[in-house]
Amino acid sequence: MKTENRTPAWLPFLPLDVPAELTEPAQVAAFELSQVEDLRAELRPDPDLPEEAYELLAEGGATIVRGGRTGMLYGAYALLAAHAAGTPLPTGVRKPFYPARMINCWDNMDGSVERGYAGRSLWFEGERFDYDPVRIRRLGRLLASCGINVLCVNNVNVHWPAQQLIDGMLPDLAAFAGLLRPFGVRLMVSVDFSQPMSDGVPTADPLDSAVQAWWAARADRVWAAVPDLYGFLVKADSEHRPGPFTYGRSHAEGANMLARAIAPHGGTLVWRAFVYNCMQDWRDTKTDRPCAAYDTYAPLDGQFDGNVILQVKNGPFDFQVREPVSPTFFAMPRTNLALELQLAQEYTGQQIDLYAMPPMWDELLADLPPERVCAVAAVSNLGRDENLFGHPFAALNLYAFGRYAWDPAPRAETVIAAWVSLTYPGMPAEDRGRLAQILLCSRHAYELYNAPLGLCWMVSPNNHYGPSPDGYEYQAWGTYHKANRDAVGIDRTAAGTGYTEQYPEPLRSRYADPATCPDELLLFFHRLRYDFVMRDGRTLIQRIYDDHFEGFALTEKMAETLRALPLPEPDRAVALARMDLQLKNAREWCDIINTFFRRLSGADDAHGRKIWD
Amino acid sequence: MKTENRTPAWLPFLPLDVPAELTEPAQVAAFELSQVEDLRAELRPDPDLPEEAYELLAEGGATIVRGGRTGMLYGAYALLAAHAAGTPLPTGVRKPFYPARMINCWDNMDGSVERGYAGRSLWFEGERFDYDPVRIRRLGRLLASCGINVLCVNNVNVHWPAQQLIDGMLPDLAAFAGLLRPFGVRLMVSVDFSQPMSDGVPTADPLDSAVQAWWAARADRVWAAVPDLYGFLVKADSEHRPGPFTYGRSHAEGANMLARAIAPHGGTLVWRAFVYNCMQDWRDTKTDRPCAAYDTYAPLDGQFDGNVILQVKNGPFDFQVREPVSPTFFAMPRTNLALELQLAQEYTGQQIDLYAMPPMWDELLADLPPERVCAVAAVSNLGRDENLFGHPFAALNLYAFGRYAWDPAPRAETVIAAWVSLTYPGMPAEDRGRLAQILLCSRHAYELYNAPLGLCWMVSPNNHYGPSPDGYEYQAWGTYHKANRDAVGIDRTAAGTGYTEQYPEPLRSRYADPATCPDELLLFFHRLRYDFVMRDGRTLIQRIYDDHFEGFALTEKMAETLRALPLPEPDRAVALARMDLQLKNAREWCDIINTFFRRLSGADDAHGRKIWD
Repeated sequence: MKTENRTPAWLPFLPLDVPAELTEPAQVAAFELSQVEDLRAELRPDPDLPEEAYELLAEGGATIVRGGRTGMLYGAYALLAAHAAGTPLPTGVRKPFYPARMINCWDNMDGSVERGYAGRSLWFEGERFDYDPVRIRRLGRLLASCGINVLCVNNVNVHWPAQQLIDGMLPDLAAFAGLLRPFGVRLMVSVDFSQPMSDGVPTADPLDSAVQAWWAARADRVWAAVPDLYGFLVKADSEHRPGPFTYGRSHAEGANMLARAIAPHGGTLVWRAFVYNCMQDWRDTKTDRPCAAYDTYAPLDGQFDGNVILQVKNGPFDFQVREPVSPTFFAMPRTNLALELQLAQEYTGQQIDLYAMPPMWDELLADLPPERVCAVAAVSNLGRDENLFGHPFAALNLYAFGRYAWDPAPRAETVIAAWVSLTYPGMPAEDRGRLAQILLCSRHAYELYNAPLGLCWMVSPNNHYGPSPDGYEYQAWGTYHKANRDAVGIDRTAAGTGYTEQYPEPLRSRYADPATCPDELLLFFHRLRYDFVMRDGRTLIQRIYDDHFEGFALTEKMAETLRALPLPEPDRAVALARMDLQLKNAREWCDIINTFFRRLSGADDAHGRKIWD
Repeated sequence: MKTENRTPAWLPFLPLDVPAELTEPAQVAAFELSQVEDLRAELRPDPDLPEEAYELLAEGGATIVRGGRTGMLYGAYALLAAHAAGTPLPTGVRKPFYPARMINCWDNMDGSVERGYAGRSLWFEGERFDYDPVRIRRLGRLLASCGINVLCVNNVNVHWPAQQLIDGMLPDLAAFAGLLRPFGVRLMVSVDFSQPMSDGVPTADPLDSAVQAWWAARADRVWAAVPDLYGFLVKADSEHRPGPFTYGRSHAEGANMLARAIAPHGGTLVWRAFVYNCMQDWRDTKTDRPCAAYDTYAPLDGQFDGNVILQVKNGPFDFQVREPVSPTFFAMPRTNLALELQLAQEYTGQQIDLYAMPPMWDELLADLPPERVCAVAAVSNLGRDENLFGHPFAALNLYAFGRYAWDPAPRAETVIAAWVSLTYPGMPAEDRGRLAQILLCSRHAYELYNAPLGLCWMVSPNNHYGPSPDGYEYQAWGTYHKANRDAVGIDRTAAGTGYTEQYPEPLRSRYADPATCPDELLLFFHRLRYDFVMRDGRTLIQRIYDDHFEGFALTEKMAETLRALPLPEPDRAVALARMDLQLKNAREWCDIINTFFRRLSGADDAHGRKIWD
């Protein structure tokens, strides 16, 4: 008899939904362990362990899951996953590297999801909470099973009536929190910095005592309703959001004011470091957007309160296919920093094109030691689609994010193989290996046809899918490549905009010299002539052509392999249909970018391949 | 005492609204004449005159308005306008050159207006008719006063529930028709070619007898409700609209089927000749969109029924700032053709930038003898804004359209001067002259900074405001300039796509040779190197730079003149605020297009003016 898999993604070994009456992580753990018949396991609470820690111990023929309150649940999922995948049990006491492992959901209360590619919001519709509690519990299981413990329910762009989440809708927020609490998942809310003004306070100035009093009173109400709320998330003075700049105050003053209001309740204030001039004149070559976060925040190091976390995007732009690590991470040793990643594939294929992120994170970890930050957050890729992710393989990115957030060590191959084994246990090992290989190379292929050599922002404005070489070139977003008939790129060295000066050594020297700058970032940091000879002996223009052709060819190979895989339905149908779209997209990128540069440079392809006029 | 002007635009001399109880044009005429105290006039019905004809005769101290049924109303407005402007009375019997003088309103039933720049629909909102009858009667007066006699109520892209206009909403359509009937304005409805299929007929094949029967029965119902309905307007097989191509039928077969259904009721079937491949692969250089209408329709000449009018856009593309006359007009001598213009300023400034159309129409008339067509239509520029047009000066284009439709003779200067005199009677004559001068040169200025030399489609995709040099370059709309480092433009001569072959002489030779092709169309017809030397001795690239700089400088001068004019409020505030936006837009066009071509060509400006990197 086929057991119905009720939770999609990587948990087919858990056929039954978690019953509504279970309220404690230990109860959930016991229930989950009971679902697998050939597994003998026993939970053993240990108040001496940290709350999220666990240890798996063999005792007699059984496995003991020793753990703290939520640690027992994490241990149970670790045991179940190892059992299902046939991998060895983790040894020793396990505890998460980062205490806060957050997903930021850009869900709007009208049911849309900003940059969402998996359907509408799982919990909002029609300006209110509107969800199936069974699905929300499945979500809780999904998050706990990979170690995620904080979920921000609403978009950082707080659109009315999301302000009501900390007002008239508090009972609904509390009910929603109650659904995820058994899974060790705490809620967070994105708040509107100017909200006091919609409640009769004439200002939102963080130094105004009426504003401070309003937020303190509001925090009392909020934590009374949801006592374990993790905190508030704030996008301020960014892309037309209100913020302290309106009042001539610094972001430390703004963040600390909110942090003090929620401190009595143990709340954490997460403040996004995503500030730049989004009304830049394209004629202005002095302003360089990648410099913005460092320029704004580095001078504030040491000024943020202890319960403030400054959340910094991995790169200095905005989740491009390839960016160097943000220099802000190295400039604020006395500030709590969080790393912000984006699982939603805004610029990385929109859950149509395959784009497994672990290889990208491995590269990031090579430049960013995990201890530089104290927390991690990722923009969610979830939605109301039946499979929750739009593309069944997009689930890998959430799974892997949880694994990396728990243990930030480079291991893309291992994590991808684990996800494949858990997700498709019925597929022969050889085919699982093939699928893992596709996923492992997916980012490389995408980068090659889309944005090799650090060339970013050649994307269709607004929707961010498909090529538009000059699409952002004359706009106000600070995103320019300045390609002309001779050269392309922005000189971001000391001789140019000075952006490389924001880095410590050895990054500074590595990036500043085209001879040591990684090929993949060459045009991010340098303006180079098309006849510039790269380390491999090819000219820049030939390399642009070659990379795009190679990316498309790789995608064709991936498609061929994918078609031959015995994936179960409906995943197979969805994956193949999306691969057809990816092939179209890859061809457009390859042909359009190559044509664009050939029109500019006049250079023929050395191998005589077709570049269209 | 200031008399309140209730009808905006060019009719300040009519202070009172037309009372609801007047139902006949003659009654309206009598009422309008009675409003002007120092005017002695008398209506004299003359059944021997054509219905729309009139003659103004001096008899004693009075003026006799002799006319047919609606002719008396046209005569009354002619008399009132001449009286208000202090111009001589028209002499002899006057009758319109074209029996059908139509505006096509792209109003959707949700209240939006496709390509509308004057607010929401004047008569639709919330999926139904929703209007102020007083405003609709004012609209009727406005149309009659300039001679327009047909109004198509709904968008040619028939979005649900607009199908209901000829179904459950017929009583509402009839009521609306009744409001405009006293002004000699007949309604027309845009219909959905596939509508039988939403009513149980399994096909919309025009040769299917069930389809024919459905339309015949439907026409019976429609004309029973609105006996003087002018006819149906159809956009078929165009931009994803349904049409006869689905069934392997020609457009003659499709149009004739509908025409036969409505013929018993005296209905006219207006069929838009706007068919092209909107899914073109940008790599395909064989397909050339301007060829499409001729290729589709010329072979069908002589096959359309007598009550079919084929409505052809002025140029072969889509209302660009400058296009050559459509060759289709010369290819179908045995077909009723209508000329379609666009008053809505989709590509021509969106009722922000000034763009008076009569100079453009004068040029068109030089190539297109009026007798080549039997009717004229214009896409409406009306909306629910207080002033009906968004920009107060945009009213000129509707007024002038009516005047040209009545009498298609080139006279931009006269018509613009008349509009200014009627609209701003309180302004000193010298200032009226200055305003007329601004309007007269507005198209030239706009063309220079926007799209000189026949360079079109360098516009922001979708919204069509603001420059985007490559915005349409890699898209599916068939709109390419193919600019590279050496040259720009498409060769549309016999050596290229062959488009010029569609023209009769002398147009064919004139366009085909760069030496005789007008400068303004040079890059429409030819692909030329940047160092091509034009007749005035300047290189093509220098001319591109010069034109854009000159367009911006002209706009600055227009702005200066405008600011000094004693325009009445609120027109002055609106016009000045929009001029600020136009200046920004003009600067963007000038700088971005020049930068785009400098990046490609590498050519410096001969006069050392600033072209940005």
